[in-house]
Amino acid sequence: MNRGILFVLSGPSGVGKGTVCAALRHKLPELIYSVSATTRSPREGEREGVNYFFKSREQFHHMIETDALLEHAEYVGNYYGTPREFVEKTLSEGKDIILEIEVQGALKVKEKFTEGVFVFLMPPSLNELKQRIVGRGTESQATIDHRLSVAAEEMNLLHHYDYAVVNDEIDNACSRIMSIITAEHCKRERFLGELFHDLANFPAADNV
Amino acid sequence: MNRGILFVLSGPSGVGKGTVCAALRHKLPELIYSVSATTRSPREGEREGVNYFFKSREQFHHMIETDALLEHAEYVGNYYGTPREFVEKTLSEGKDIILEIEVQGALKVKEKFTEGVFVFLMPPSLNELKQRIVGRGTESQATIDHRLSVAAEEMNLLHHYDYAVVNDEIDNACSRIMSIITAEHCKRERFLGELFHDLANFPAADNV
Repeated sequence: MNRGILFVLSGPSGVGKGTVCAALRHKLPELIYSVSATTRSPREGEREGVNYFFKSREQFHHMIETDALLEHAEYVGNYYGTPREFVEKTLSEGKDIILEIEVQGALKVKEKFTEGVFVFLMPPSLNELKQRIVGRGTESQATIDHRLSVAAEEMNLLHHYDYAVVNDEIDNACSRIMSIITAEHCKRERFLGELFHDLANFPAADNV
Repeated sequence: MNRGILFVLSGPSGVGKGTVCAALRHKLPELIYSVSATTRSPREGEREGVNYFFKSREQFHHMIETDALLEHAEYVGNYYGTPREFVEKTLSEGKDIILEIEVQGALKVKEKFTEGVFVFLMPPSLNELKQRIVGRGTESQATIDHRLSVAAEEMNLLHHYDYAVVNDEIDNACSRIMSIITAEHCKRERFLGELFHDLANFPAADNV
């Protein structure tokens, strides 16, 4: 059995990663979604292993030290991270897994998981991203300039990715991602091992 | 405007390249199909530049000498080849072009056109290919053995290709090829040039 493929969906803030991922989940229910570990408390209705893997700070630190996380970050006093074991287990079962994550986290995942397929969600144009960031004009020029330069830096990270998917319409973006998933399964490397094994006995027609 | 992409569809004899290509032509009418040059005479209803580019032997030899063909071969006393100009013109207009060709020709095209995307059409299994080759058992064991060894050699060429598409059902094979076409258009290289040009002026919010 072939291993599954890790797809990492990332892109600049505000590009619509969450919305596209939610739509994709609906269209591709067989795709597994990476579940994060966190030190924050479960909210009502959240389930262990479904929404998050809930960890104490001690457990989380232990995961960091034992390289059990593909990436982690602190956000508003809590830790969040991507457990390697869940990803590995899914892939070894021959299933694909998708991880939706901001650009810095994606680059950390890439360091530890070079065989992943990295997809960068793009705004339809830089002007459109600019309009969104400038927004309703209620913020100071300094804040706007800072956000613009962060967005420019994030866009610059595209060259670390394998694919760019323009999020012009959610359905289009989903179709492109689904095509990328199909195409990655057609990469010739995925066929070579089995083929050469089979070819070893191929010319012998005796058992036909 | 981005250049188009050359897709080369190849695979072992009998795998169904022609049938898949005909179905694809129906599903993707906007895809351009490479037109071969030939020295054979036009048959009734065949049109210049649609079915073939009809050439004299002198013209064909001149094309070979001036490197105007991506590949060529002789078959039953006539020459056949892939004119480079038609491929180049189509790509420079931003349109994709597909070339259906046997495996040896595909490898020659790859030497001259490394940026092409090479798709290998596979039988569902080597056993199925074997069954087809052994056929109805009316041929000598020597003939069958020869065909099997040719097929094994052709299958071995898979490692020169970018993708493998299993031809289990024509519709499935077409869908996979269409996904590969979409995914290739999402390769990040196709976005980088334009992006870095745009990003040069991006943080300046003055014209928003």
